[in-house]
Amino acid sequence: MESCFATRMATTPASFIREILQVTEDPGIISFAGGLPHPETFPVAEMAEAVQQVLERFGNRALQYSTTEGYRPLREFIAERYWVRFGMTVDPEQILITNGSQQAQDLVGKVLLNAGDRVVLERPAYLGAIQAFSLYEPAFTSVALEEDGVDLERLGDVLAEGLAKLMYTVPNFQNPSGISYSREKREGLAALLRKAGTVLVEDDPYGELRFRGEALPPVASFYPERTVLLGSFSKIFSPGMRLGWVCAPQFMMRHFTVAKQATDLHTSAFSQYVLAQYLQDCDLEGHIAAIRARYGLHCDTMLQAIARYCPPEVRCTRPDGGMFLWMTLPEGLSATALFEIAIKERVAFVPGLPFFVDGSGQRCMRLNFSNASPERIEEGVQCLGRAIGRMMGTG
Amino acid sequence: MESCFATRMATTPASFIREILQVTEDPGIISFAGGLPHPETFPVAEMAEAVQQVLERFGNRALQYSTTEGYRPLREFIAERYWVRFGMTVDPEQILITNGSQQAQDLVGKVLLNAGDRVVLERPAYLGAIQAFSLYEPAFTSVALEEDGVDLERLGDVLAEGLAKLMYTVPNFQNPSGISYSREKREGLAALLRKAGTVLVEDDPYGELRFRGEALPPVASFYPERTVLLGSFSKIFSPGMRLGWVCAPQFMMRHFTVAKQATDLHTSAFSQYVLAQYLQDCDLEGHIAAIRARYGLHCDTMLQAIARYCPPEVRCTRPDGGMFLWMTLPEGLSATALFEIAIKERVAFVPGLPFFVDGSGQRCMRLNFSNASPERIEEGVQCLGRAIGRMMGTG
Repeated sequence: MESCFATRMATTPASFIREILQVTEDPGIISFAGGLPHPETFPVAEMAEAVQQVLERFGNRALQYSTTEGYRPLREFIAERYWVRFGMTVDPEQILITNGSQQAQDLVGKVLLNAGDRVVLERPAYLGAIQAFSLYEPAFTSVALEEDGVDLERLGDVLAEGLAKLMYTVPNFQNPSGISYSREKREGLAALLRKAGTVLVEDDPYGELRFRGEALPPVASFYPERTVLLGSFSKIFSPGMRLGWVCAPQFMMRHFTVAKQATDLHTSAFSQYVLAQYLQDCDLEGHIAAIRARYGLHCDTMLQAIARYCPPEVRCTRPDGGMFLWMTLPEGLSATALFEIAIKERVAFVPGLPFFVDGSGQRCMRLNFSNASPERIEEGVQCLGRAIGRMMGTG
Repeated sequence: MESCFATRMATTPASFIREILQVTEDPGIISFAGGLPHPETFPVAEMAEAVQQVLERFGNRALQYSTTEGYRPLREFIAERYWVRFGMTVDPEQILITNGSQQAQDLVGKVLLNAGDRVVLERPAYLGAIQAFSLYEPAFTSVALEEDGVDLERLGDVLAEGLAKLMYTVPNFQNPSGISYSREKREGLAALLRKAGTVLVEDDPYGELRFRGEALPPVASFYPERTVLLGSFSKIFSPGMRLGWVCAPQFMMRHFTVAKQATDLHTSAFSQYVLAQYLQDCDLEGHIAAIRARYGLHCDTMLQAIARYCPPEVRCTRPDGGMFLWMTLPEGLSATALFEIAIKERVAFVPGLPFFVDGSGQRCMRLNFSNASPERIEEGVQCLGRAIGRMMGTG
């Protein structure tokens, strides 16, 4: 019976994380595996108030079919915020509201990718993007991330090998690595892609979550003519509401709108009204500041616990924001094998393999620090250190 | 710059209706063009109550990331309702929650269609499905609808011509025609498709809106092994919330889940919790009965007005439910040309052309009767009659 399926389904990786998350649903396990924001960062009371306001002010209008592009005041808010944060000029017409930035990735695939098109990824790369793009059957190439962003020399070589249709990047606190691009890397990336005529897909779900250092402008600001910039309210409002956006050059908007319409007509009007009301009535800056402070504390707790409990041969990134850090085990060790031992020690993480399209990454693993409390982080890293010690024969 | 787009975008029809709806935003125009439920059928007060319940009972859990398949109690409700209404045995594991049934169509395309696969449509066919499937570049064939469903003899010929991957149908109060399948046609369709090994995509967004006659079982109940049945809460709860579902055979569910995950992770958890709470606390049967009574009145008003104000050469369907009826102008007249005249008479509809994949349908047009009040329907049909009269040279 399998014969009725499209061939694209055979090339789309079933989410390895999905399987892992099922293992870690056991509340006795301390999980660094998921990618969940801390639930106390969701503004429940403010949302209850916003809903009542919306239903009183707009009534059944908030429940009717709506425009494909999205609720205008929300699109205006997003455009305005690019101006306020970075001095970027964005027209609200360049914003299309999506069901989280995951759907934005699907729309990018729909609008831009033919089967066989070359897509350049970072190495490691965000798993959700690998999945979303896989459905459009591209040929992936990956270029290693250095401490301050992608290896531009190697990227130059890759781009010289032949047309790359698009490059996908997460320049702020990348998932999975926690790495951020320096200003020089941002400018250099823009220059290389402009020369090659490659579209940049810049995914920025974590940009607001900086707890160290200074905010840097999106790569889009250096390469506005061919960058599709993706954003999300998942990390600063609520992921369960599924609200994100595409910010693209004007000449692409008609195609994005047609693709969005064919895909699901529009994103929930009700959710958009509620979010817009929240943004109008509540203190978003204060809310984001509190999330930043919380995640900064979580991250520092994890880094200090790693220094205390893990063997010194273990290396890890030191993120300036976001929700993840990236650990590399000593030569010869496998993170997938470690996972089995760690589960017995009651701690979980995501082994690196699924973040690579070339089969590398065996020694790497992703640790989430946003979801667990500092106490649980401390305890979990202690378990992890024990597991690594056992694996290295020193535990 | 256009060269960066995928070829699939060139074959996807931009929605003609989209353009039309912009013309008809003028409140001075009586519009039968849209496909909007009547706004007074949205349970605003009950929803406000359900939201408060959800936020009190579940708090931030309703705002967190959730499972791809959907909120379990909602899936159980849907499965149970198939049992109660039709004695159909459906496992909740066969239900995947989507952003309205439009997204279900996109997922069907993703999971099942390779470029060039043959897809059989009704003639006329639902425009949204033509759009959604077009992104997967199939070869469309259409088979005429008779008064009681698709022409089975002609369908048999089409299926004999070579493998058709899937057939798409709306057996209850079809959009755009208002036509419903008889029991015989349902059974005959199932038998033909089973013999051919063709997957049936049965879209049923209007099934609950029957205001005349007796409910008939889904074609899925005669062909459960290869039918993908689509449903929606848009017409009985709220379209703006974007909540629908796929009900598919077990062997397809893994692929649908992977496709949904790659597309947008999951449908809004918050919306699903709110809907489930509404379904638990409120009188859905009473609510649906009120919608049925209302639309029955609207439909009869439109039919009577057509008899009164339109020339007798004009034919139209007499729907037993749903939101649309289908008008056919006398030989030699064009509904597209009529549209221009009708707009001057301050009334709008959708000319038939976009509902056909073979360029036919020039004399046909779709009239929506759910959205306007009976008074406006009466007035609008009077304008329409005048426009037709002017066109026929008798006005």
